[in-house]
Amino acid sequence: MAEPTALDRWEQHTQVPLMTLAVLFAVAYALPIVDPGAARPLLTACQAVNWGVWCAFAVDYAVRLWLSEDRTRFVRGNPLALLAVALPLLQPLRLLRLVSLLLLAGQRARLASQIRVTTYVAGCCLGLLVFGALAVLEVERGRPDATIHTLGDAVWWAFTTMTTVGYGDMAPTTGWGRILAIGLMLSGIALLGVVTANIAAWFIARFEMDDEEERRQTAAIHALAEEVRSLRAEITALRQAADPAPGPPRGTA
Amino acid sequence: MAEPTALDRWEQHTQVPLMTLAVLFAVAYALPIVDPGAARPLLTACQAVNWGVWCAFAVDYAVRLWLSEDRTRFVRGNPLALLAVALPLLQPLRLLRLVSLLLLAGQRARLASQIRVTTYVAGCCLGLLVFGALAVLEVERGRPDATIHTLGDAVWWAFTTMTTVGYGDMAPTTGWGRILAIGLMLSGIALLGVVTANIAAWFIARFEMDDEEERRQTAAIHALAEEVRSLRAEITALRQAADPAPGPPRGTA
Amino acid sequence: MAEPTALDRWEQHTQVPLMTLAVLFAVAYALPIVDPGAARPLLTACQAVNWGVWCAFAVDYAVRLWLSEDRTRFVRGNPLALLAVALPLLQPLRLLRLVSLLLLAGQRARLASQIRVTTYVAGCCLGLLVFGALAVLEVERGRPDATIHTLGDAVWWAFTTMTTVGYGDMAPTTGWGRILAIGLMLSGIALLGVVTANIAAWFIARFEMDDEEERRQTAAIHALAEEVRSLRAEITALRQAADPAPGPPRGTA
Amino acid sequence: MAEPTALDRWEQHTQVPLMTLAVLFAVAYALPIVDPGAARPLLTACQAVNWGVWCAFAVDYAVRLWLSEDRTRFVRGNPLALLAVALPLLQPLRLLRLVSLLLLAGQRARLASQIRVTTYVAGCCLGLLVFGALAVLEVERGRPDATIHTLGDAVWWAFTTMTTVGYGDMAPTTGWGRILAIGLMLSGIALLGVVTANIAAWFIARFEMDDEEERRQTAAIHALAEEVRSLRAEITALRQAADPAPGPPRGTA
Repeated sequence: MAEPTALDRWEQHTQVPLMTLAVLFAVAYALPIVDPGAARPLLTACQAVNWGVWCAFAVDYAVRLWLSEDRTRFVRGNPLALLAVALPLLQPLRLLRLVSLLLLAGQRARLASQIRVTTYVAGCCLGLLVFGALAVLEVERGRPDATIHTLGDAVWWAFTTMTTVGYGDMAPTTGWGRILAIGLMLSGIALLGVVTANIAAWFIARFEMDDEEERRQTAAIHALAEEVRSLRAEITALRQAADPAPGPPRGTA
Repeated sequence: MAEPTALDRWEQHTQVPLMTLAVLFAVAYALPIVDPGAARPLLTACQAVNWGVWCAFAVDYAVRLWLSEDRTRFVRGNPLALLAVALPLLQPLRLLRLVSLLLLAGQRARLASQIRVTTYVAGCCLGLLVFGALAVLEVERGRPDATIHTLGDAVWWAFTTMTTVGYGDMAPTTGWGRILAIGLMLSGIALLGVVTANIAAWFIARFEMDDEEERRQTAAIHALAEEVRSLRAEITALRQAADPAPGPPRGTA
Repeated sequence: MAEPTALDRWEQHTQVPLMTLAVLFAVAYALPIVDPGAARPLLTACQAVNWGVWCAFAVDYAVRLWLSEDRTRFVRGNPLALLAVALPLLQPLRLLRLVSLLLLAGQRARLASQIRVTTYVAGCCLGLLVFGALAVLEVERGRPDATIHTLGDAVWWAFTTMTTVGYGDMAPTTGWGRILAIGLMLSGIALLGVVTANIAAWFIARFEMDDEEERRQTAAIHALAEEVRSLRAEITALRQAADPAPGPPRGTA
Repeated sequence: MAEPTALDRWEQHTQVPLMTLAVLFAVAYALPIVDPGAARPLLTACQAVNWGVWCAFAVDYAVRLWLSEDRTRFVRGNPLALLAVALPLLQPLRLLRLVSLLLLAGQRARLASQIRVTTYVAGCCLGLLVFGALAVLEVERGRPDATIHTLGDAVWWAFTTMTTVGYGDMAPTTGWGRILAIGLMLSGIALLGVVTANIAAWFIARFEMDDEEERRQTAAIHALAEEVRSLRAEITALRQAADPAPGPPRGTA
């Protein structure tokens, strides 16, 4: 209903380019891990895309901050966006740049319905699964005690972790690998929660048993309406007794 | 209430034969895996049943498409049925034919109540458990590193996977085995969600604490009814004052 | 409100003795497993208690069937009680006698409130945990590949199974052990569901956000009451105009 | 609204000092485990803090008991506080002193909203995770079969346990270690329940589908209001017929 502000217009216009950049970032992140023996210029290009995308998101944050009417409130109301821009400065936490993209996407998606929240959480879980697997593969590959050696191993391990099955045929052995694994476990719990909550909400909304109190209310309202109708009939009779003229009554709206 | 359409009649008449075919397919699927040393003609018969059932379901889909009033809407509204017919063309995904049968059964069951949804999900989980175990057994048996060697092993592994316990005493080691395992894990999460949601919905429907707002409404309605009753008494008094004749009032309905 | 029937009186009087018998059965079940080297007469006594308790429950079922007004309905409405009496005839499923006791206890408890259902499920889980551990210990102990050797091992394994953690440092290796384990896993899922559903129901009942629709209803009812009140004032005025006598109106109840 | 009692004032004034003491206790608990080779006077100081904090909580309980109006009711209504003060007398259960602190904190927090309950449960889980890991490390370190050797191992194991993933690459092998592990598993289930319940409550409150019955009620109320309005118009007409004078009616409030 309200006139879109400059901020709304900016967010609307930048949505598609930012999502394109995010996909580009994901490719540039995955490629050097999937094929570590790729040509040197390709790896350099990936590195460049990596940083370029981060810059684009930093610029977007700055513009949105500048366009917002109340800047203190914007910073406070978007702690995740700030974190998403600030975090990747720590080099080893490159994966967090992807998490930051997911956060920015979530912020833009305005999670207004159950379907959107579910889609967003499922999307995040899928993203974390794939990129968590890639990150763990990068960290674990080539370590003496490692059990995760190939991309297939890493994806399989990520699934067993996220579904909380945890066979233990593979498990990270390095500190970073384990930190990433904890992230996957917590996402798995969130996923489980969203799945269950979804089904529960659907059951309750669709198959809710009759609410006794409400049916009694409906009955009371109908009895009351009946009472008022007979009251009206009585007044009609009263008026005809007082003023037996067949013409329309004076003063009726 | 509405006249059953040709489509409704077709679906009603084909329900029993299709379910019989599905059971036949399940037997023909399981037999060569459980007893790989069975006589050659028996295995050939199983193969034939396998394809025959798929043909029957494809024909059923075609007839339903042809009988439906709005074909574009039918195709769009039944993506799973199309998938179920199209998928088995990929030979290694034979198990998906079974999933497709479950999907078709689900579609026909018109999941109209909580009990039906729960029965359907539980049935799907049981079906996936048994046939997932069979499929993994077929894929893993005889591999050098395999830990799953017998039907008992496979069923035990399927249970530990689906309940997300995941001891890890057995785990698939081949690519296809792991893909099937991921399917079981996801079904397990769905099952867990349905179990929890069911109990939650039952608790909420049966033991819901008093709703403060609703009780205030009931009180307001009763006060209003009291007000209207006294209003009526006053009008009765007024009418007797205006028209003290003992006869019935004129003009009353 | 209704007069208690003969069946009600029987159930009320037998509650305490049956629970005492159940405790006796549990002790007689556990003792030979915990201390297999106990004196022979003690083990014989346990065996006797074992069968005596089953007889008592069979008699209870028979009496309840005989006292019930509609016997077909009683058998149909109590399938679990029938199962509980019929099952233990299969010798190796001795543990099911305990499950049957839990079922009978549950039936008597008339699960009328959330707290009761939770207590009952938690009690069942604890019972299954302890006696599942005992049963698995009995089955696995002394097997060449077994990993469960002592009572401590068995209880620890039962906890890792029921919480779906499943480290895999211990796992049953025999067929019966695995069947018992599957029972524990499914109980674990039920427990998880009840815990979550409980918290969800409590959150929803206690912290439910304002229901927009209901508040609009309350407002509408109050506006309506206001309308009726002013209507009444108008009628009072009308009556005073028609009949200005200070006395009480004729015909008012 | 009510005047704060002496008990309320005491609880308000002691909140900050008690929380400070709790942090001190946590540090004194953790230090000797993290660095067992610390200087002897430091370890002695930790022991002293350990007991000092317990004394402070015991005194707090005593004062609250003394200030309460109905002492029997206070003891009965605060079983956890009593347990929290009484339990640590058993030397090997030192960790329970921490649990007791969490219980006391929870009691003071008056869990009045969903956010508070969630924060409290999440805080308890984090506390149990960190201090459970420390306690298991203390118990397992140096045992011949142990798989948990360093603080990193212990925290990693605690995460895999609490999320119910349970790889099994590490697992406690001593009795005390396993008892602590069971505590972590049960906390993990509680955490899972709270996460799911939270999301479910949020979905239900925010995205609840239209309630058919309620919309029918709203319609009935509006129809009734319409009826009353036309009734009023009729009475106005009636009054003008009976008393056509333009002046204000007599006797109107």
